[in-house]
Amino acid sequence: MLERLGINAKEAEKTLMVASSEKKNQALKKIAEGLIENTDKIIEANKVDLENGEKNGMAKSMLDRLKLDKERIEGMAKGVLDVATLPEPVGRILSATERPNGLRIEKVSTPIGVIAVIFEARPNVTSDAAALCLKSGNTVILRGGKEAINSNKTIAKVMRQAVKEAGMPEDVIQLVEDTSRESANELMKMNEYVDVLIPRGGAGLIQAVVKNATVPVIETGVGNCHIYIDKNADLKKAVDIVFNAKTSRPSVCNAAESLLIHKDIAKEALVAIKNKLDEKDVTLVGDSKAREIIPDMEKATDADWATEYLDYKMSVKIVDSVEEAIDHIYKYSTGHSECIVTENAGTAEKFMNQVDSAAVYLNASTRFTDGGEFGFGAEIGISTQKLHARGPIGLPELQSFKYKIYGDGQIR
Amino acid sequence: MLERLGINAKEAEKTLMVASSEKKNQALKKIAEGLIENTDKIIEANKVDLENGEKNGMAKSMLDRLKLDKERIEGMAKGVLDVATLPEPVGRILSATERPNGLRIEKVSTPIGVIAVIFEARPNVTSDAAALCLKSGNTVILRGGKEAINSNKTIAKVMRQAVKEAGMPEDVIQLVEDTSRESANELMKMNEYVDVLIPRGGAGLIQAVVKNATVPVIETGVGNCHIYIDKNADLKKAVDIVFNAKTSRPSVCNAAESLLIHKDIAKEALVAIKNKLDEKDVTLVGDSKAREIIPDMEKATDADWATEYLDYKMSVKIVDSVEEAIDHIYKYSTGHSECIVTENAGTAEKFMNQVDSAAVYLNASTRFTDGGEFGFGAEIGISTQKLHARGPIGLPELQSFKYKIYGDGQIR
Repeated sequence: MLERLGINAKEAEKTLMVASSEKKNQALKKIAEGLIENTDKIIEANKVDLENGEKNGMAKSMLDRLKLDKERIEGMAKGVLDVATLPEPVGRILSATERPNGLRIEKVSTPIGVIAVIFEARPNVTSDAAALCLKSGNTVILRGGKEAINSNKTIAKVMRQAVKEAGMPEDVIQLVEDTSRESANELMKMNEYVDVLIPRGGAGLIQAVVKNATVPVIETGVGNCHIYIDKNADLKKAVDIVFNAKTSRPSVCNAAESLLIHKDIAKEALVAIKNKLDEKDVTLVGDSKAREIIPDMEKATDADWATEYLDYKMSVKIVDSVEEAIDHIYKYSTGHSECIVTENAGTAEKFMNQVDSAAVYLNASTRFTDGGEFGFGAEIGISTQKLHARGPIGLPELQSFKYKIYGDGQIR
Repeated sequence: MLERLGINAKEAEKTLMVASSEKKNQALKKIAEGLIENTDKIIEANKVDLENGEKNGMAKSMLDRLKLDKERIEGMAKGVLDVATLPEPVGRILSATERPNGLRIEKVSTPIGVIAVIFEARPNVTSDAAALCLKSGNTVILRGGKEAINSNKTIAKVMRQAVKEAGMPEDVIQLVEDTSRESANELMKMNEYVDVLIPRGGAGLIQAVVKNATVPVIETGVGNCHIYIDKNADLKKAVDIVFNAKTSRPSVCNAAESLLIHKDIAKEALVAIKNKLDEKDVTLVGDSKAREIIPDMEKATDADWATEYLDYKMSVKIVDSVEEAIDHIYKYSTGHSECIVTENAGTAEKFMNQVDSAAVYLNASTRFTDGGEFGFGAEIGISTQKLHARGPIGLPELQSFKYKIYGDGQIR
């Protein structure tokens, strides 16, 4: 069923792979214009999705994620234009060497090829992902959730038309219109056509992709993020960082979920942090030592240590040393973002070297793990795997490379 | 069954991840010494494998790959020592930026973690792979073929003892002693413990891994390599390069398999190349235009264009243009290595930019696609995928990275 899309994507990639920056930026500009010009059409299609959602009893928060209005569509268009202003990622010479036999070897960045993105209910992902893939020279096959299918179809149509008007093959952007589970499964196994698959969504989607895909995958998103308050912590920083990391946006992957506190500072720190978190009614669950300090705290189970709550809830453990904190994180972390709060440089360096996560912070909120905050301009997700991309996936991470070897008749 | 190995590997990785260069090099030196000291024991174990192989009717070429003697064991030890002399790959600062809010973000190379290597009958892979993984700070789980199990067990034992003597956990190197298909399948799905799986072997093994693995895989090895002789080619270079790429070692993945010749030079070039290849009795199969020039050539089928012969055989196609050559390669190549022979710089650049393979050559043999020849010192295989590693996989490719973010209380 989807093979045709695969063939189209590979064919369009031949053109996109070698397209100039000007050409690609022109296409992005056309897309942004198209989104603005077709605002009414997009809102109309989105209304159908919203009505269906309400009919099917979709939760309020989900309906909000699904909803598009004039302002949000302007935001999508602006996002596309922002991508156009980013530096050209294709064709950078990453290294160059001359071998004793006279061969000159250049390592050059290239597009990956065909990128498939499977995502859930947020229709703005359609234009975000398409823009990043186009700029990085990759054709994209988008497969969104059925909840947003009418919005996605309209957005994809607008984008394809814009690309065509810019003189590029419209198949650089394709949408899978079949939103059945079968279409997702088929996409996960199209090794002949798909160079990488990026799932964007909840833990369930990501696990399904990791288990079923035979194409290479970049795993994204799940963040069981820890903050460790060292005995040499500055308490004010500790309180501010925990409050920010837990409550500024609890539903996102870089929100903190678990708090580890050194025993020597436990009482003072925990009481101060609890007082602050109470402003947002955060529920704490803790180990026995934490419950000695705050007796009305529920007991944390083993499942709690491994849970990404994505809610106003946090687990608390009192540890004997930075080593115990590191061990706990090694065992339970999803490898997203962790933080140490300390004024002791030696302890900080130990933590930052030994904690095996994409982003390790000294005295700063885990909420900074984000392409924009890192200065990447934009991101297609946060990788929690160690292969190819780790942390925010920006344009450079959407590149492969190849070796160009210049000889003059050399043989071996 | 293999879960214990996974747990051990993760545990040992905690130490290896932060081990100093000196410590790792000391372990490598001990391994090299151990291999030399235990030469007799290794040869004895290898004899059992060779006898079993003969009993089971193993082909001569396979028996030769399996065989270890004093010289080959010395070669293995030397290979391990060579790895010790390579630059330290862990902890390199890949980039550093300071954000407007004062956060300093360092991107630092780190080990990947636990690497599993599934390989076939060559027991020297055991020490090669172990040395590269150790130097790059990755614990390794080795799973060799049953043909070499006695050799592998002895080599692994020697290496583990040596690592222990160097004061490191012996579990940084582990061997799967169960060589059943089930053990390979289990290894392919140990997502909790294995960060990347590298298959080394024939197309059958690699396809089985790509289809079954749920852990991230680096696909290696299959090379349907092309040489395109442009109308502006220097004929002497063309003859030398094709002869070298086809016949210097036909059984390896960087050997050439398919020859494309521009029509304007076809007659002259094909006759000259055929005369040279006749010295090694290379069989040519061709399209109708090639057969007009050499009538006793068999017809090439569609399967021929897609075949990695690994033998004294080559397919030949006459093309109308460099564009047709690029299209043919785009359709049939496995993305390993391709070459253009031309004196025209414009045509060369077009070919080298548009051919989407790990290594693209101008006027040089495809046989140079090799970690040693590229100056990497050593390699664990040649990647034909575009994610993470492409081309020879050396120490830098056995690294992931993480972000270390230094703050002073920043919140978002």
